[in-house]
Amino acid sequence: MAQLKEKQLKMIENGNVTTPKGFQAGGVHTGLRKSRLDFGWIHSEVPATAAGVYTLNAFRAAPLQVTKDSIDKSGKIQTIVVNSANANAVTGPEGYQNALDTQAKAAEIKGVDVDHVAVASTGIIGVQLPMEKIYKGIEAMNDEVNQGAERFETAILTTDIVTKHAAVQFEVDGKLITIAGAAKGSGMIAPNMATMLSFITTDADVEQASLEKALRSVTDQSFNMITVDGDCSTNDMVLVLANGMQENNTLNENHAEWSVFVEGLRYVSQELAKQIARDGEGATKLIEVKVKGAASDKVAGEVAKAIISSNLVKTAVYGSDPNWGRIICAVGYSEQPLDVNKVSVSLGDIQVVQNGLPLDFSEEAGTTYLEQDIVTIHVDLNNGEGEATAWGCDLTYEYVKINASYRT
Amino acid sequence: MAQLKEKQLKMIENGNVTTPKGFQAGGVHTGLRKSRLDFGWIHSEVPATAAGVYTLNAFRAAPLQVTKDSIDKSGKIQTIVVNSANANAVTGPEGYQNALDTQAKAAEIKGVDVDHVAVASTGIIGVQLPMEKIYKGIEAMNDEVNQGAERFETAILTTDIVTKHAAVQFEVDGKLITIAGAAKGSGMIAPNMATMLSFITTDADVEQASLEKALRSVTDQSFNMITVDGDCSTNDMVLVLANGMQENNTLNENHAEWSVFVEGLRYVSQELAKQIARDGEGATKLIEVKVKGAASDKVAGEVAKAIISSNLVKTAVYGSDPNWGRIICAVGYSEQPLDVNKVSVSLGDIQVVQNGLPLDFSEEAGTTYLEQDIVTIHVDLNNGEGEATAWGCDLTYEYVKINASYRT
Repeated sequence: MAQLKEKQLKMIENGNVTTPKGFQAGGVHTGLRKSRLDFGWIHSEVPATAAGVYTLNAFRAAPLQVTKDSIDKSGKIQTIVVNSANANAVTGPEGYQNALDTQAKAAEIKGVDVDHVAVASTGIIGVQLPMEKIYKGIEAMNDEVNQGAERFETAILTTDIVTKHAAVQFEVDGKLITIAGAAKGSGMIAPNMATMLSFITTDADVEQASLEKALRSVTDQSFNMITVDGDCSTNDMVLVLANGMQENNTLNENHAEWSVFVEGLRYVSQELAKQIARDGEGATKLIEVKVKGAASDKVAGEVAKAIISSNLVKTAVYGSDPNWGRIICAVGYSEQPLDVNKVSVSLGDIQVVQNGLPLDFSEEAGTTYLEQDIVTIHVDLNNGEGEATAWGCDLTYEYVKINASYRT
Repeated sequence: MAQLKEKQLKMIENGNVTTPKGFQAGGVHTGLRKSRLDFGWIHSEVPATAAGVYTLNAFRAAPLQVTKDSIDKSGKIQTIVVNSANANAVTGPEGYQNALDTQAKAAEIKGVDVDHVAVASTGIIGVQLPMEKIYKGIEAMNDEVNQGAERFETAILTTDIVTKHAAVQFEVDGKLITIAGAAKGSGMIAPNMATMLSFITTDADVEQASLEKALRSVTDQSFNMITVDGDCSTNDMVLVLANGMQENNTLNENHAEWSVFVEGLRYVSQELAKQIARDGEGATKLIEVKVKGAASDKVAGEVAKAIISSNLVKTAVYGSDPNWGRIICAVGYSEQPLDVNKVSVSLGDIQVVQNGLPLDFSEEAGTTYLEQDIVTIHVDLNNGEGEATAWGCDLTYEYVKINASYRT
């Protein structure tokens, strides 16, 4: 990331999906959950150019199929409705019809085109949506459309603890553009997407094909580089809506400020991804793995994901044990091209392995470093120019507790 | 496995690596550990035809390299020495020399050819072997060579709780042949081998190339189908020694009873693999995943490994939660060819998914089933003739506890 571009971006501390011009959001309690908000929406004053990336799981849930079909057909989304507590996954033709009915009802209530409604669900697999509750949520959009993004961010959570949002501003053609996002994560977060939903809004005017390409590119450097437990869910989706209300010249790869826009999209995506990783089920720490010197960015990414996915690395970080042998071990089984005699490993600033051999280091300093909230593991393969970063969290008693009892 | 072949095999309840004719074993305490046995050996009266399979980890430990080179060169092994507490991995040229010195000293003490000694290590990574303790262990072989297999089985354990052994007998050319094995496992057990050591002895006479082929084949259906936490270690190895002391006609693929021998080798390997999975760190249950109806055996194996490796499946089994959604989810992200509308899932005899859709079943019966010590998950892809079985264990508080504090 060039310094120049970074300087052109301004992080907006409390920005959220309603910070870009023309977006509203809200959330209500419909009874899907006992008392927590369980149904949320985002609405744009005008149809927004849309792009999505979707789970690779063969059991892709019905709402994803309906949303993907609509974006493929119209290229636009104006309203997004999301329910938690029920994933509407592995629900067959009835589940598919329920997703279509949700979309149709939302279109009717908001007076928008059916193909301009995106639907998303997260929660238990294999149970049909209780449609009367879903309709109750959709009808609430009529009266209380702009309740604020915090209610939306809360309504989409499942076993997440904290709401997640990020926003950034920059200028395009002299207009102030905002990109902002909300997300939910927690268990089943893994590379290739997981029970992870992310919704990104922007008031920039962007060409659809370019928006889609940019989303794919930044997703590979953000949401696809996080893991909580390596499981990939049926319901993962990232959507971006660009409503063009700042009236810049339409952005595409040929626009002089295209790279600034992509940088902004990447910043928001990576911030959300890190918040998801940090809030993994039972997590006490964010683990960041930075790999460089790889034969390619792809090789660096695979090595980073092998390390961040290792239960042994995750438990060692939980226990603040500077056990670099487990990191080396994960590098070794990543099945990537590398020379074991060139590998270096550092925990923060403390180098522990050089040229594939252990260095003397203070165990105490290592433990102290690992006691921090954010732990960075650096691996240099000294074998090329490729680099990548992956994020994850520690593996704790609480993770086991949550997942031995919670019905996903 | 044909019924006929099964009938030709006789399981030997308390058989061990010294049950085949001409093998001795023992174990001593050298001080590598505080008080537990930490150095063990197996010795054959005559040089035995040998074959090995070794970890795919790029950081392959020095003793594996030394052992592999010797078997590649001589095709025979007469003495195996194993230490626990120190893996002699990521130890550079000094570690390699220590492995050579261990081999040379053992050859001298036992009066065997240097290339007829196999060395193996398991324990902490990145620390040089304290050679005076290793020599102490080697010298003990002189006086007390046949202390019994139980001391050997104990000496090779790390965080394992129980010793592991299996044995089977059958006839070849009218001679009673025994195949027996010992193993260590626990954490870092994964497909493609892990901190897993297994030593198999037999008094059959077997051609080296055939023995190697048979070992590879049965390893893919046993040790490569188990997982505790998905981490693949630097030190994994399976060795088989065939000393020919029953004086059968040399076995190879053309021998009428070859398939009985392979079946016996498979039985011992699978029994040891299951014992390793059941004794995974912190495990309370053995999980067996049987996949059939796949496009090929390979596809079935990948699907089985995706399920057995899922932390969410493992925690659900720990909590006795009949949460089939997590099984379906793992099937879906296995990236294998399958039709989601044909998939069936059963927990023991309780079918929970048919043609990709949930069935009504008694949650209580599901929970009761999962409370057993051995849990079998059946998946039928209804998409071909391929089948495979994988074994693993549940993920528990105790796993986190062991790995947040134990230095691997």
